[in-house]
Amino acid sequence: MRSSNGQRGLTPKLSIDPNVFTLERERVFASHWQLIGFENSIVEQGQFFRSSFNGSEVVCIRDKRDRVRVFQNVCRHRGTLLCEEASGCFKTAMTCKYHGWKYGFDGSLVSAPNMLDTAEFEKEKYGLHEIRCATWQGLIFCNASNTAKDLSTFLAPLDSVATRYRLKELQIASTIHYDIDANWKLLFQNFNECYHCPSVHPQLTPLTNYRDAENDFESGPILGGPMKIREGAETISHDGRLCGTISSGLNDLDQNAARYYTIFPSWFLSLFPDYVMIHQLSPVAFNKTRIRCDFLFNPITVNSKDFDSSKVSQFWDETNRQDWEMCERVQIGLTTPDFEPSPYSNLESLLVAFDDYYKSHISEK
Amino acid sequence: MRSSNGQRGLTPKLSIDPNVFTLERERVFASHWQLIGFENSIVEQGQFFRSSFNGSEVVCIRDKRDRVRVFQNVCRHRGTLLCEEASGCFKTAMTCKYHGWKYGFDGSLVSAPNMLDTAEFEKEKYGLHEIRCATWQGLIFCNASNTAKDLSTFLAPLDSVATRYRLKELQIASTIHYDIDANWKLLFQNFNECYHCPSVHPQLTPLTNYRDAENDFESGPILGGPMKIREGAETISHDGRLCGTISSGLNDLDQNAARYYTIFPSWFLSLFPDYVMIHQLSPVAFNKTRIRCDFLFNPITVNSKDFDSSKVSQFWDETNRQDWEMCERVQIGLTTPDFEPSPYSNLESLLVAFDDYYKSHISEK
Amino acid sequence: MRSSNGQRGLTPKLSIDPNVFTLERERVFASHWQLIGFENSIVEQGQFFRSSFNGSEVVCIRDKRDRVRVFQNVCRHRGTLLCEEASGCFKTAMTCKYHGWKYGFDGSLVSAPNMLDTAEFEKEKYGLHEIRCATWQGLIFCNASNTAKDLSTFLAPLDSVATRYRLKELQIASTIHYDIDANWKLLFQNFNECYHCPSVHPQLTPLTNYRDAENDFESGPILGGPMKIREGAETISHDGRLCGTISSGLNDLDQNAARYYTIFPSWFLSLFPDYVMIHQLSPVAFNKTRIRCDFLFNPITVNSKDFDSSKVSQFWDETNRQDWEMCERVQIGLTTPDFEPSPYSNLESLLVAFDDYYKSHISEK
Repeated sequence: MRSSNGQRGLTPKLSIDPNVFTLERERVFASHWQLIGFENSIVEQGQFFRSSFNGSEVVCIRDKRDRVRVFQNVCRHRGTLLCEEASGCFKTAMTCKYHGWKYGFDGSLVSAPNMLDTAEFEKEKYGLHEIRCATWQGLIFCNASNTAKDLSTFLAPLDSVATRYRLKELQIASTIHYDIDANWKLLFQNFNECYHCPSVHPQLTPLTNYRDAENDFESGPILGGPMKIREGAETISHDGRLCGTISSGLNDLDQNAARYYTIFPSWFLSLFPDYVMIHQLSPVAFNKTRIRCDFLFNPITVNSKDFDSSKVSQFWDETNRQDWEMCERVQIGLTTPDFEPSPYSNLESLLVAFDDYYKSHISEK
Repeated sequence: MRSSNGQRGLTPKLSIDPNVFTLERERVFASHWQLIGFENSIVEQGQFFRSSFNGSEVVCIRDKRDRVRVFQNVCRHRGTLLCEEASGCFKTAMTCKYHGWKYGFDGSLVSAPNMLDTAEFEKEKYGLHEIRCATWQGLIFCNASNTAKDLSTFLAPLDSVATRYRLKELQIASTIHYDIDANWKLLFQNFNECYHCPSVHPQLTPLTNYRDAENDFESGPILGGPMKIREGAETISHDGRLCGTISSGLNDLDQNAARYYTIFPSWFLSLFPDYVMIHQLSPVAFNKTRIRCDFLFNPITVNSKDFDSSKVSQFWDETNRQDWEMCERVQIGLTTPDFEPSPYSNLESLLVAFDDYYKSHISEK
Repeated sequence: MRSSNGQRGLTPKLSIDPNVFTLERERVFASHWQLIGFENSIVEQGQFFRSSFNGSEVVCIRDKRDRVRVFQNVCRHRGTLLCEEASGCFKTAMTCKYHGWKYGFDGSLVSAPNMLDTAEFEKEKYGLHEIRCATWQGLIFCNASNTAKDLSTFLAPLDSVATRYRLKELQIASTIHYDIDANWKLLFQNFNECYHCPSVHPQLTPLTNYRDAENDFESGPILGGPMKIREGAETISHDGRLCGTISSGLNDLDQNAARYYTIFPSWFLSLFPDYVMIHQLSPVAFNKTRIRCDFLFNPITVNSKDFDSSKVSQFWDETNRQDWEMCERVQIGLTTPDFEPSPYSNLESLLVAFDDYYKSHISEK
C-alpha cells in the first residue's frame, strides 16, 4: 500500500467558491479530453445526441462519411438552440426551427432562406462551429484546446484493459441519471478510495475486501486498479452471481476482480467479469454535478433470452446513491468556517494523487 | 424592402449579463414612457390597480377629480407594501394594513394614528411618492424622468392610426399573462420580423404572406407597419373570419390588413379590422420577462349576444407561445462561448433599427 | 411613554443588501450570545440535537459528566456533516457515517479506523471543534467570541423575572417552525411595538390595550416589559381563559400581565400567567429568517389530564403569521428606490433603542 505521507485534503475553498469553478473551466476542463457519449448511440448517418461540454450545448452527429462530428448546438443566425431533443435522427439536414436555416451533417450551412440578397453574407462562412472530438474504444470525447495531446496518447495506458474487456463491442443495456448537490472533485475523491466501503456500502463487504485495492496507476490523470472478488462470488451484484457471460479475452485476474479507474476530469471506468459501468460527470456549478451512469454488456449477453440488466443496475443505483449522499454531506460540512481537513490515511493515497494532479493545473503558473 | 446592410445582431453579452440589465434600468428604461395599464380598468374614483414600473411596485388610482394618478406602492412610515391586491376600489382612502396610515386618492397622508405628538413629524410631508404619468388614447404610461419629452409628442406618430381604430373607446375582452425565460430585447426582435413565420407559425400562412410586411416607421422608438390580409380572409383568427364588427373610421387598407407596431421599450400594438391586441412587457431580470397580453374590441362587439373573444385570444395564445419558445431557445444559445451573430437578412431590417436605437441609449456617452 | 425624538427608521440598505448580512455575521452575531435550544431536550447522556449557529452546523450533546457541550457538526477527517438527524441519542460515541470515525460525547476522537499508520496524524489533535456555550435558566446559548462577557452577566437583568416564572422548570408542550421572507431586524422591530396591534391583530384587542405597554428595559440588548391584561380576561388565549395553572411565585402584576422581551440578536421571551412563549431566530440570508417558536408550561399543567396546549399555540400561530406577513411586505417595500422611512412614533420608542444598539455594532469603529 502506498503511503499518503500525511498529506491533507484540498482546502475547502476550492469546492465551495463559485469563482474557483469559473477558473476551473479555463485551467482544468478546457485542456482535458471529456467524455460526452457513445459511438453506439449514433450508428446511422444523421443520428445525433445532444450533450453538454464545458458548460455549453453541443450536438454530436454521425455524418455522411460515417464520421463522428461534434458541433456547438447553436444556429449561426441569431443564436437559437438548434436541437432540442435529447437524441434522434435527421433525414437530410439539421434544421433550425426559428428561421429554417439548414445545416448538413458535416455542419456546413446548406440553405438559409431569404439570405441570398443579404449584404456581407457568405454562406460558406456560417457553418456550425465544430468542436475537436475523437473516439477511443467506442467512446466519444471532446477537447476545447487545439494544443492538447491526442486522445489516443492520453488514454494509451488503458488500451490493454479496454482491449481485453472488448470495450468497443459492448452495448448499453441501461442508463441512470443523477443530479448531485456536490462539487465534482468530491465525487472523484469518493470514487478513489474504498476506506468508506465498510460504513457506507455494507452490501460490498461479502464481495470485496475494502483493503484489497491495488493500483495500476498511482499518479497523473488516470488512477486506480483491481480489487479481487472474494472466493464464492463471481461478480459485483446483489447475490454475487453473474448477470451475463464472461467475455473471452479476460485474463485470470480480470475474471476474478473488479477494476475501478477514474480518468481526470470527467469519467469513471469500472470493469467487472461480465459487464462494464461508466460514470460520465458534467459539473454544472461549484456545488452541482450531473452524472450519467451506463451499464454495458457484450452482445451475446444482451441478446440472450433471460437477460436482465437491472440485476446489476439496481445494485449500483443503491451504491451510487449511498456515495452521493456522503459527497453531499461533505459539501455542506466544508462550508464550516475555518475547517481544515486532517491528513489522509494510507487508504486514501489516490486522493493525494488526484489532489496533486488537480493542483498542478489550477495553480497560477 | 429596406436593406439590413449586413449589420450583425447585438453582441450576446447584452442579453446574458445581469450587469447590463442593471445598466438598462438607468440608461434605457428610466428615460422612456412605459405602458402600465388601461384607463378603462379604473373608471370609478378610488378604483386602482397594482403594477410594476422599472422594477418597483406602483399603484395606479383614479382620484376624486377623476384624474389618473400613479404612486409608489409603499407606505411612507416603515416601507410596507401598501396595496397587495392586483386591483380593487378603495372607499375613502388607501389604508396601510400595518399601522393604519391612510392616504387620499391624491396620495396625501390624511391620517396617521398615534403620530400627532411625534417630534419632527409633519403630516404634509408624508404623502405617497408620486410618479410622473400621462395617458394617451386610453392607455396609461409612467416615466421616471422629469426631463423626458411629453407622452403626446412621443406617441404623435401613432395618433392617426389610434384615431382611426378608435383605440380610446375599445374595451378589454380578455387578458393573458406570461412568464418568459428570455431577455426583453429578444422579444422585441422577434416581434419585429415575420421571417420566422413560415417555420414557427404555420397557422399564419393562409392569412398573411410573411414577405408582405410594409413599414410605416423604419427607425427610432416606434417601428412597424401593415401586412395585407390575403384574399378570402377577413382578419387574423383561426378560420380567418371576423370575431367582431369592423369599426367605422377604418380606411381601405386598415380593413384588409394587420398592423404590427413595437414601441420602445415596453409594448407592442397590433391592430386588426375587428380587434386590437396589446402586449405589455415587464422585464424582471436579464433572462426573465413578464408579459400581459390584452385583447380589445369595440363596445358594439363586446355587447353583442354571441361575442366570444376566445376565438382570437386562443389563436394568439398559441402564436405567442410559439414565439416565446423561440426566444427562450435563443436565450440559451446566446450563452455559447464566443458566439457571434450573422448579418441580418433584409427581412430583419427593423431589428437593425431596434438595435441601433437601443445602442444609442445603452452606450456610454 | 418614552419619546422617539422623531428618529427615523434604519436606512433600507441595511435590510436589503446581502453584503450587510455578511458584515453582520462578523460584527453583530459573532460577539453576542445566541439561543440554540433547551436543556430539557437533552436529559440523557449522549442525547443530542442539531442546530445552526451563526450560519454553520452545530451539534449540542450532553456529555458523560452531564455537561452540555456544543461542537461543529463536522467530521475532522474530510469535512462530512456528522449528525444528520434533527435530534436523537448516541449510545457510546458520535460516529461519522462516511469512514467510521468515532467521537466521544466530549468531542474527543476516540477511534479512527485505518489511521494508525498515517504519517503526521495524532489522534489527540482531531477532536471536534468545540464552541463556547453556556446555559441560563434551562436555555442553551452559544458565543463565537472568547472575549464576550459571561452569559450570566449578559442576562442578569432577566434573572428576577425568570425566577418568578420558574423558567428552568418549564417543559416544552409544542413547537412551531416558520420560514419567513424578511430580514431578521424587521422581525425584531415588529415585536418591539404594539402600534400595529389594532390593525394587524384584532384578536388581541379584547385582551390587552395596545397603548398599555410599559418598558422594564428601554435601551441596550434587552428591551420590553409588561402589558396589563384587561379586566375579565385571565391570559392571552382565544377566549382569554387560562390554558394551565398559574405558577406559584408570580407577583400581582405577573398574574395580570403579558410580558414581552426581545433579546438581541436572536430571541424573544414572552411570559404569561400560565405559560411562556420563546421565539428563536436563525437569520439565513439578508431576506430570509427561520423561526422556531416554543410553548412552555409548568410540569403540573403538562401532566394534567385535559391539558391541550393548542389552545394557546393556535392563537399565537395565527398572530405570528399576521406579523410575518407584515414583515414580508416591508421587505418588499424597502427595495423601492430612494425610500426613506418617516420618524418613529412614540409608540415605537423601543425601535429607536433597537436601531441604536444595532448601529453601535454594525458601524465601523
